[in-house]
Amino acid sequence: MKIAIVGFGLIGGSLAKAVKAYTSHTVYAVDKNKSVLDAALSCGAADAVITDMSRLSEADIVIVCLYPGDTVDFVCANAASFKKGGIVADTCGIKSEICGSLNRVAREHDFCFLGAHPMAGSEKSGFAASRADLFKGASFIITPGEASGRAVEVMSALAVKLGFGGVITASPEYHDRMIALTSQLPHVLACSYVLDPDAELHRGFSGGSFRDVSRVAEINDKLWSELFIKNSAPLTEKIDKLVDNLTVFKECIAQGDEEGLRRLLKEACKRKESIDK
Amino acid sequence: MKIAIVGFGLIGGSLAKAVKAYTSHTVYAVDKNKSVLDAALSCGAADAVITDMSRLSEADIVIVCLYPGDTVDFVCANAASFKKGGIVADTCGIKSEICGSLNRVAREHDFCFLGAHPMAGSEKSGFAASRADLFKGASFIITPGEASGRAVEVMSALAVKLGFGGVITASPEYHDRMIALTSQLPHVLACSYVLDPDAELHRGFSGGSFRDVSRVAEINDKLWSELFIKNSAPLTEKIDKLVDNLTVFKECIAQGDEEGLRRLLKEACKRKESIDK
Repeated sequence: MKIAIVGFGLIGGSLAKAVKAYTSHTVYAVDKNKSVLDAALSCGAADAVITDMSRLSEADIVIVCLYPGDTVDFVCANAASFKKGGIVADTCGIKSEICGSLNRVAREHDFCFLGAHPMAGSEKSGFAASRADLFKGASFIITPGEASGRAVEVMSALAVKLGFGGVITASPEYHDRMIALTSQLPHVLACSYVLDPDAELHRGFSGGSFRDVSRVAEINDKLWSELFIKNSAPLTEKIDKLVDNLTVFKECIAQGDEEGLRRLLKEACKRKESIDK
Repeated sequence: MKIAIVGFGLIGGSLAKAVKAYTSHTVYAVDKNKSVLDAALSCGAADAVITDMSRLSEADIVIVCLYPGDTVDFVCANAASFKKGGIVADTCGIKSEICGSLNRVAREHDFCFLGAHPMAGSEKSGFAASRADLFKGASFIITPGEASGRAVEVMSALAVKLGFGGVITASPEYHDRMIALTSQLPHVLACSYVLDPDAELHRGFSGGSFRDVSRVAEINDKLWSELFIKNSAPLTEKIDKLVDNLTVFKECIAQGDEEGLRRLLKEACKRKESIDK
């Protein structure tokens, strides 16, 4: 297959490197930055570059690895250029906002749009941080929308070859609610946590739990502010729920209600066991 | 030296094993559970057991490794038995509540009380989970109170021999405020987080940030409820501060205030860098 990858940052670059490392498909590179294209070619992450977008029609699969708003803009602007019946996928961490509008565009222009979310990342960004094994064991989430079963199969098989540990499908809405909890909330939390003025004084008083809860505060503010705001309804609901739970703990602690507190901790411990199962 | 260790659980057992592994001191074991004493003797974690508490007078150092309330009870009940001028240390994760009363007892009975907090732990508890290298690289915090400089030196030198990465001294109040943030809050957080009903559905939607924020929810409810309640003022203050910060994030997200959100994320990122320095 011929696979065009649009945006050679951390995700796009890693996908390209994985395609070249683990499959025999051809990779076309698209990026607005010429030096990134040169780097991709010279390290073998791409076979050719596309600068004339009408040539996107040569690709069986186009994987757009841009920020959410840029992804929608790119697909809309180049809707007429995609191969008829070909697959176009995004890689955004939110899906409702993306899939709604792009399914419509795909229908009008006779290509197959498929929402995708490779569940991997790094504190580092950009092509320099990309690597072929970034997705090893990670989850590849597909929100098929109106995509055909064949398109889902093709993308799933590709994901497995690229090293993903598993492929799951979900509706955009379910994806966004789960991601609000499992990924976005931990990032909001880590940032809220390190803003406590005492956090900078931690040395000598901190161990594993401090390190773990603060780890992802090293954050790309442009990307994550867009992801948070474009998923604001599920995310603010999850923040509210967490604040409610924190408040229940606080009340028990403030009132010295040992019995109530032990009941809460036991319940949390049971949930954790069920999570790990 | 002759070192008596009271309570052969995770911490006491690990201290005993570390003393036997890394020093030539003698270890006396004290535990109410005879089978634990037998296990400690047979695996070489102790040289002898003490069941008659008047023999505590033979020990140059007594390290009490019990829960906070039990620690105070034990030291008070056996205050007359400790060697005159000898060192008695606790190992509790909170210090103000312990040190206030025990400094007074120490003065009355002419022994030297020293608050200590070995900053290490495990999800597992009990002697079976103990190991000589539990403290490798960890911080050993001393709240000297009225203890002599010599006692602090003796305990510091011992801690370094046992594998601790560093020894720091602090007032009980400063210790408790920092621990509320660096250790207790992450535990409250992890428990509050996993109580979201969607947490159990995480599989396929979760990665490193989910794993990290939920890790310490596997918690000993008896120990931690006591630690939380006996440190309620600093801990509830830290919960309040976190809730305030979460609420600021939430407002920005709900209002689609991208500029405000990016400013917060940038500030958090800067704090994280300063934390890691």
